[in-house]
Amino acid sequence: MEQRISLVTLGVTDLETAKSFYTALGWRGQEAEETFFFQASGQAMVLWSRERLAEDCGVQDPGPVAFGGIALAHNVRSAAEVDELLEAAVRAGGRITRPAGTTFYGGYAGVFADPEGHLWEVAHNEGFPLAEDGSLTLPDFDAK
Amino acid sequence: MEQRISLVTLGVTDLETAKSFYTALGWRGQEAEETFFFQASGQAMVLWSRERLAEDCGVQDPGPVAFGGIALAHNVRSAAEVDELLEAAVRAGGRITRPAGTTFYGGYAGVFADPEGHLWEVAHNEGFPLAEDGSLTLPDFDAK
Repeated sequence: MEQRISLVTLGVTDLETAKSFYTALGWRGQEAEETFFFQASGQAMVLWSRERLAEDCGVQDPGPVAFGGIALAHNVRSAAEVDELLEAAVRAGGRITRPAGTTFYGGYAGVFADPEGHLWEVAHNEGFPLAEDGSLTLPDFDAK
Repeated sequence: MEQRISLVTLGVTDLETAKSFYTALGWRGQEAEETFFFQASGQAMVLWSRERLAEDCGVQDPGPVAFGGIALAHNVRSAAEVDELLEAAVRAGGRITRPAGTTFYGGYAGVFADPEGHLWEVAHNEGFPLAEDGSLTLPDFDAK
């Protein structure tokens, strides 16, 4: 298995609201058969019916829960960008689940939930450098 | 917000088992403070205590559920690779939640759950071309 994730599919109960939320944050994508696809660097982020996603995966959906066991992160280039994005997320219909502040790893970050409860940490972490295209490269921990 | 996901963090109740599972599938990473980091193309995939992840996100953890609302996908270059990876996932301690078969979108895919229940579709989808480095580019849907 190569070390990569091709798609991240977020199950949603209300596709229009989810689509509007990400569109308000600047994401642009394409729709096909009630599914919304965003190109996200070398992968795709997909919005699809939560019910159909669970069925397609062959599992039972207990319904939305406060924490589904996964968090996404969007790293940015400054603490100011963290604040800006969290504010934009609230304006777009998300909610802050952890206000921005200094983190245990020395960065500055906060967490928002999208309208479906999918969690995004927005972080400025100088230890995890971002390339110009936004890609993230882990440092060599032993070299620290 | 740029269209990219910097990190995907999988909450786990048993870090060693999760680490062994992904290591058996060929993933190599680094550990720091009971957290395991894999470079995954231009992002990182992280294994971290489910309890601490929920706490860090400011949400209550209802505990593992059959479906947390998100599915990951790993696209490969042939149907044979789909079968191989699903078999490897079972050998490593995962379980098949949807056996491999032809999909509604015309590809060939199956789904496995890792030991913590995180879902991975393994798919061969000629409609979503993979570059040599494994990165995925969505086609122009209107051009079809």
